[in-house]
Amino acid sequence: MHNQLKTYCKNIVPLTDEELKLIDTHFEVQNLKKKEFLLQDGKVCSSIGFIVKGAIRHFHIKDGVEKTCDISFENSWVTDFQSFTHNMACVMNLQAMEDTILLVIKKENLYKLYSECSVYETFGRLMVENVALRATDIAMSLSSDKPEERFNNLLKNRPDLFQRIPQKYIANFLGISPESLSRIQKRIHTKSKS
Amino acid sequence: MHNQLKTYCKNIVPLTDEELKLIDTHFEVQNLKKKEFLLQDGKVCSSIGFIVKGAIRHFHIKDGVEKTCDISFENSWVTDFQSFTHNMACVMNLQAMEDTILLVIKKENLYKLYSECSVYETFGRLMVENVALRATDIAMSLSSDKPEERFNNLLKNRPDLFQRIPQKYIANFLGISPESLSRIQKRIHTKSKS
Repeated sequence: MHNQLKTYCKNIVPLTDEELKLIDTHFEVQNLKKKEFLLQDGKVCSSIGFIVKGAIRHFHIKDGVEKTCDISFENSWVTDFQSFTHNMACVMNLQAMEDTILLVIKKENLYKLYSECSVYETFGRLMVENVALRATDIAMSLSSDKPEERFNNLLKNRPDLFQRIPQKYIANFLGISPESLSRIQKRIHTKSKS
Repeated sequence: MHNQLKTYCKNIVPLTDEELKLIDTHFEVQNLKKKEFLLQDGKVCSSIGFIVKGAIRHFHIKDGVEKTCDISFENSWVTDFQSFTHNMACVMNLQAMEDTILLVIKKENLYKLYSECSVYETFGRLMVENVALRATDIAMSLSSDKPEERFNNLLKNRPDLFQRIPQKYIANFLGISPESLSRIQKRIHTKSKS
């Protein structure tokens, strides 16, 4: 279980065997059944999870309506970043879309890892850079792309999403109704045949 | 000039006098006249700037139309994060809205600083965390808040914006027309009087 995370880390920063062993002691396995929650809004999020297997949907609730912000698969990190960083009640829900296995590190263990071993600090910075890049990307797309463009980008960059996740969640992630998603798909299908 | 950045850094991480001196040698002063560009789209962004005085507007151009993504004032960092991290041609434009003074660090100097002095690596991680938090916040707001809510949040969190930046850029940042912004302002003004 921990080996998958070790391989992931070694591909990003150079780590000695001794440094790699810290992963065994600092991360705990957590299993979620499909539909189970890793995190629910209103609580303070005090850990970060690495998905070994499965899928996690990130959503928040606005005026009683679910808004899907992201969907993460294997080898991704999941947390409510705002809550984790500032000890605030979180607004995000993290729910398993399939039976899911995670490796979870508690905040205090992560910060201990950073201070004990500077290569993990570098690793942490690079991981946060990815969070920043992804969030910037989503914000730019939301501010200027039409639904059809966002659908095309998703199809290009995340084809696995369409294999594994029910259409209604993909529509929700795109901020459109399932009917609009069907229409876009039909239109693109017709275009590609003509 | 460099003292402002030193004070800023000392408030975030503990730094010895020797570590603080690295700021003098790694950061260069850059002056921009109002309307001048720190960065234009199509180029690779290889530096990060700290605003000592002034204002920078971040915008990208979509189908010939400017989309304002952010507006930064004193004691903020500015860069095209995607371009800086992945050496890609940048999509962002960074333009001075007032006469602006920056302290700029080149990428190679920043990475040298990180490897020479681990406290700067911690500082870097914390700064990137802020970028991630801000981008997540903007993305969440764009995906679920109505223009009037986004206007209210802006008024609450960034009142300085309304003092220093022409209305048309604030409207553009909110993703609405200047006329819609006027209508929202009038409506709120009427509500607050009744």
